[in-house]
Amino acid sequence: MFEYRFSLAMSSADPAGVLFYPALFRHAHDAYEAFMRENEMALDAMLADGRYALPIAHAEADYRRPLRHGNAVTVSVVISRLGESSFTIDFDFRDDSGESCATARSVHVLIDRATGAPSPIPEAWRRRLESHLHPPS
Amino acid sequence: MFEYRFSLAMSSADPAGVLFYPALFRHAHDAYEAFMRENEMALDAMLADGRYALPIAHAEADYRRPLRHGNAVTVSVVISRLGESSFTIDFDFRDDSGESCATARSVHVLIDRATGAPSPIPEAWRRRLESHLHPPS
Amino acid sequence: MFEYRFSLAMSSADPAGVLFYPALFRHAHDAYEAFMRENEMALDAMLADGRYALPIAHAEADYRRPLRHGNAVTVSVVISRLGESSFTIDFDFRDDSGESCATARSVHVLIDRATGAPSPIPEAWRRRLESHLHPPS
Amino acid sequence: MFEYRFSLAMSSADPAGVLFYPALFRHAHDAYEAFMRENEMALDAMLADGRYALPIAHAEADYRRPLRHGNAVTVSVVISRLGESSFTIDFDFRDDSGESCATARSVHVLIDRATGAPSPIPEAWRRRLESHLHPPS
Repeated sequence: MFEYRFSLAMSSADPAGVLFYPALFRHAHDAYEAFMRENEMALDAMLADGRYALPIAHAEADYRRPLRHGNAVTVSVVISRLGESSFTIDFDFRDDSGESCATARSVHVLIDRATGAPSPIPEAWRRRLESHLHPPS
Repeated sequence: MFEYRFSLAMSSADPAGVLFYPALFRHAHDAYEAFMRENEMALDAMLADGRYALPIAHAEADYRRPLRHGNAVTVSVVISRLGESSFTIDFDFRDDSGESCATARSVHVLIDRATGAPSPIPEAWRRRLESHLHPPS
Repeated sequence: MFEYRFSLAMSSADPAGVLFYPALFRHAHDAYEAFMRENEMALDAMLADGRYALPIAHAEADYRRPLRHGNAVTVSVVISRLGESSFTIDFDFRDDSGESCATARSVHVLIDRATGAPSPIPEAWRRRLESHLHPPS
Repeated sequence: MFEYRFSLAMSSADPAGVLFYPALFRHAHDAYEAFMRENEMALDAMLADGRYALPIAHAEADYRRPLRHGNAVTVSVVISRLGESSFTIDFDFRDDSGESCATARSVHVLIDRATGAPSPIPEAWRRRLESHLHPPS
């Protein structure tokens, strides 16, 4: 399972010393980019190539326990759904004690920039995404 | 209906020149803070007072059309649910043409900091929130 | 003199409830973009046009008094130096009481994207920038 | 020499695909926090302790070559000046090729929260900061 780590810095903390809620999505996006790079689907290469865009259609998060300034956070990243031209990523944020503090989810749609329409996910990408597929139980 | 306006600046744009998706939540939070201030529930005064905390338990957004660098964006803010100790805010983001491009929702829980438990929403706050109540149709 | 206003929201506050120092530069950039738009040099139009880039070569800030969560901040924007192909902007951040709390400065260089070299500032831009020229006393 | 690494993600990139200039200061602050933690002066512990504040009085940066979306960036962190109650940090940002693309500097003042006045830097901190002292040549 792909894991991404970061230290919760002041740049993500609010006046109460806990994670400012929008910052969770920034860290989820950073984890998503690291996941894509690790799996040979780096977003900067995709943008430079110019054939596809990969906008996000939906994002959500549940905040169960505070993540605090100074926490060493581990984010696990799994593909929870793999469709014809879209996929869903589930993120789980755990603090130093290993406890899940927050979860997030994002839905990504592959767009062919020539037509502006959704595009089937290329076979090479599909295989890599499938190897991280963990449908919710 | 409460409306909040901002110009979509480079600080919120991604390499494709459109809104970086986590930035929608930052703007939703800015709109929420402006709404609370306008309705005499300013968050900085609440934090200084020390009696309550108002963490966010859930957030979500749907992205339908791109919001672009340079767009003059109008965000409408309504209370879509008002519970005993929690409430839900719905945000609608419209671009210059008046078209809805994205929506967001956040769930807020009032906590009594002395006990750490959810607290009934004070009557004065309830009246002000009720005056902005628009349950989803 | 061009002025830009914002309310210092949680998105810019640190765990001490005061402005997180890097956020000053985000607000300076937002003020710069508003200034350029107001003076018919909108950055999104310049990027779309594709002829010029306008990178920042230097930025600095001095923090004298804390700007606090909830403060209504006014930023004045002046051109403090206008060169052949570059210009310098000075920003002054005042809180509700009108007191200057922080200043910032950024140096902008106009680049011709065809050659990658600095370009003379077009005459129409020069006239608009000159009308905001206030060399430091 | 202390080094901090990050991958330049979309969250720091502008519509031209290069580092959005204010984001350099966020990464400098993240590097500073990692440096302080590594040297047993973690900022979250200092804030929790309540005796000191450590505001930033000045910050500046020079941008020489673009840092691009996708770059693996290495930041070196040194103390360039160590005063009675303040110190200066110099940051050097290098891209994958090892070339210096940007430098930043921040000036930190230790404040005794009981008096609000600058405080001598405690001896234990001074020794740790001294071991990273590299005055500019």
